[in-house]
Amino acid sequence: MLSIKDALGALEGRWKLLILFALAEKPKRFKQIAKEVQGITDKTLSKELKNMEANQLISRTVYDTFPPTVEYAITPHGLSLEKVLDELHFWGLRHRQQVIGK
Amino acid sequence: MLSIKDALGALEGRWKLLILFALAEKPKRFKQIAKEVQGITDKTLSKELKNMEANQLISRTVYDTFPPTVEYAITPHGLSLEKVLDELHFWGLRHRQQVIGK
Repeated sequence: MLSIKDALGALEGRWKLLILFALAEKPKRFKQIAKEVQGITDKTLSKELKNMEANQLISRTVYDTFPPTVEYAITPHGLSLEKVLDELHFWGLRHRQQVIGK
Repeated sequence: MLSIKDALGALEGRWKLLILFALAEKPKRFKQIAKEVQGITDKTLSKELKNMEANQLISRTVYDTFPPTVEYAITPHGLSLEKVLDELHFWGLRHRQQVIGK
C-alpha cells in the first residue's frame, strides 16, 4: 500500500506526465517545455520541475556557456515508469470504453 | 495521455485504493469498510463509495432483508486494476529505495 501511494504521489497532479512525455523525446530547455506543455504557467512548471528533480524522475544540467544553458532530461528512474504508464494507459482505455464512453 | 489521466483520476485521493483492498477480500457492508479503512469519516466513505460505484469499480447491492442490508463488492472492472496496481507497487518499491530511502 505504501509503495502504491509513493508511486501515485510521484505522478500526482495534471502536469508531471505531460512533462515526462515532453522529455521522453529528448532533453529540453525550460522555454521549450513551457511551450510544449500547453496551459502551464512558468511558476507552476518551475515548481513541478523542482519536485520531479527531487524525485529523481528528471535531471537538471547547467552548461557552462555564456549565458549559461540549463537543460532538463528524463532519468533512468523516470524512464522506468514506462511499464507503469503502459498499464495505466491500457486500463484507462478499457475504463473509458466501459464507463465514460457509455 | 487521456487514458492515463482517466486511470489516475479513477484512483485519485488517499482512500480509493484502501477501499478496493478492503473489498478485494470479500463483499462488505458500510460499517465493516468504515472499520477497516482507518481514519475515514462516514461522510467521506459515503462519497468515495458513490464515486467508485459511478466508475463501476464496485457494486452496491441492497438485500431484501428486514431491515434492508446493503453490501459493497469489487466488480470485474475493479479487479482488472490488479495489473496496474502491481506495476505501481513494483515501481513504488524501487522509488522508495532509490529516492525516499536515501
